[in-house]
Amino acid sequence: MTNQEKFIVIGSNCFSGACFVDYVLGDNPNSRVTGISRSPEKRDVFLPYKSKGKERFHFHALDLNKHLNEIVSVIREFRPDYIVNFSAQGMVAQSWENPGQWFQTNSMALMRLADKLKRESYLKRFVQISTPEVYGSCTGHIKEDAPLNPSTPYAASKASGDLSLIPFYKNYNFPVVFTRATNVYGAYQQLYRIIPRTVIYIKIHLQGGGRAVKSYIHIRDVCAATLQIARCGTTGQIYHISPDGEGISIVDLVNMICAKMGRPLEDCVTMAEERLGQDAFYLINSDKLKDSLGWRPQISLEKGIAEVINWVEENFDVLQSSPLDYIHQP
Amino acid sequence: MTNQEKFIVIGSNCFSGACFVDYVLGDNPNSRVTGISRSPEKRDVFLPYKSKGKERFHFHALDLNKHLNEIVSVIREFRPDYIVNFSAQGMVAQSWENPGQWFQTNSMALMRLADKLKRESYLKRFVQISTPEVYGSCTGHIKEDAPLNPSTPYAASKASGDLSLIPFYKNYNFPVVFTRATNVYGAYQQLYRIIPRTVIYIKIHLQGGGRAVKSYIHIRDVCAATLQIARCGTTGQIYHISPDGEGISIVDLVNMICAKMGRPLEDCVTMAEERLGQDAFYLINSDKLKDSLGWRPQISLEKGIAEVINWVEENFDVLQSSPLDYIHQP
Repeated sequence: MTNQEKFIVIGSNCFSGACFVDYVLGDNPNSRVTGISRSPEKRDVFLPYKSKGKERFHFHALDLNKHLNEIVSVIREFRPDYIVNFSAQGMVAQSWENPGQWFQTNSMALMRLADKLKRESYLKRFVQISTPEVYGSCTGHIKEDAPLNPSTPYAASKASGDLSLIPFYKNYNFPVVFTRATNVYGAYQQLYRIIPRTVIYIKIHLQGGGRAVKSYIHIRDVCAATLQIARCGTTGQIYHISPDGEGISIVDLVNMICAKMGRPLEDCVTMAEERLGQDAFYLINSDKLKDSLGWRPQISLEKGIAEVINWVEENFDVLQSSPLDYIHQP
Repeated sequence: MTNQEKFIVIGSNCFSGACFVDYVLGDNPNSRVTGISRSPEKRDVFLPYKSKGKERFHFHALDLNKHLNEIVSVIREFRPDYIVNFSAQGMVAQSWENPGQWFQTNSMALMRLADKLKRESYLKRFVQISTPEVYGSCTGHIKEDAPLNPSTPYAASKASGDLSLIPFYKNYNFPVVFTRATNVYGAYQQLYRIIPRTVIYIKIHLQGGGRAVKSYIHIRDVCAATLQIARCGTTGQIYHISPDGEGISIVDLVNMICAKMGRPLEDCVTMAEERLGQDAFYLINSDKLKDSLGWRPQISLEKGIAEVINWVEENFDVLQSSPLDYIHQP
């Protein structure tokens, strides 16, 4: 793919957004990317794209809740082929504390953005990064047509945001596609997420007492899927992104990390309570993405975790001076 | 039913809300009702409850978007058994013009209210008045588990509001039930709605060129269903409310009204364009309500329309001095 391609990445400061910027710059040497996030760019240790394509990336510190008109101006001037929207209030448990903020960003602001962009003819695709949390507690392998049944304000706000785009698709052919990836991990991830946190802390409080089974996918597999969906997905469709296999319990995950770092599990684990509205188990089915777009996951959990450990060890001094806990910004 | 029952009706100024207040005051002589709407009480001609139970009804002009804390204080002091929430930005076509206002009222404000009320132990039921518009364009008879697929910002905002309540139900046993009634009509309805509008104007612009098939249900049938759902519905469930039969095209509806008023159809109809995102046809299935709660519709369309004509004729001087078009309040 050597065509010129222009991307707007909203939420370029977040882990997935920054990795997607990096992936696009690397995938197509003729690509240009404009990143938008509400905060100034993060420290280099959290921004994989810093090492490449500097002249092809530009950044604007703009907040979707406060600077909608400025963001729309940036978009209209740049005339992107693709907009990929990672921006969201992303924390699940915290969403109980002030759900209005989650609805504001994940539903209201998104809907207002789509309303402004519904007639932009240059736009080939608007990729909305959704979440399988919208399905709530499920068992088995979930397909894209599973009913929306959110268990938390976070999940409800994301489901609301997804629904808010559908009328624009139906009536203006707004070129939206939705991706719902299972838990993403990788180097550069926020330090309060379980894999980097485990690597750094070793001793960690396990949410759900470690019984919960989750499925993790490496961010580069997600980036490859997202780019493919942006280029070739069918407008209006939802695409799941998930690895092969049956998931892993948190205790087994921590065990794997401990083993790779040469520490016994018993030294590293204390128990914590189940969090409110935690969905006990889900595994999303990504046959649609595999069958229709030929995507396959490439990075095993073993290999991906080794990469995270490597990133932490190489940057340990810098990471230790970074906040290790989630800091909420309204 | 002669128990003391306390109701809070939010949106008591709207057609359905005011009729529900009237229905409750009449159904149970020991009931007490507190009405809440953002505007002062409407003229008596639009408030059926004015003729009965004055000492059992109190009204507060409070806006869910602006006076949430005051509304919560009223609720906590009154300690209702039931809250029935009719408040909404309700216009479908107009929702395209400023969808943010629809999301603000129908999703954000509702979610914030539920967040405040999630631990009120006296509350037996929170009845959320939803809409079959959440299903978008469908064919056949729609059951309550049909997927959410909204075609307009109005529909998306109502679907978002419904979803926003589910986490509170799941995690706090918030006693929500949802009703989705087909098109409601009756005396006291806003004059811009098709049945009273047709009666008043005779000459009317038909949306959708009159081909669209709709189903109409009389407000008293809806009130009876809503009250029964409030009292005996299963928390967390959705209940459809619809009449028997297969619906009626708008042109046949207007024809029926013209015939009852002794005017030929040709004198009364001019054609208008399809409105954006109008759902061509749906008929919702209310077997669940009928089977589980024994509700049956009582008022035929013929009888109900005769009642509307009668209301218009008896109040024609007052109604003529009322605005005949929808006036949007942000």
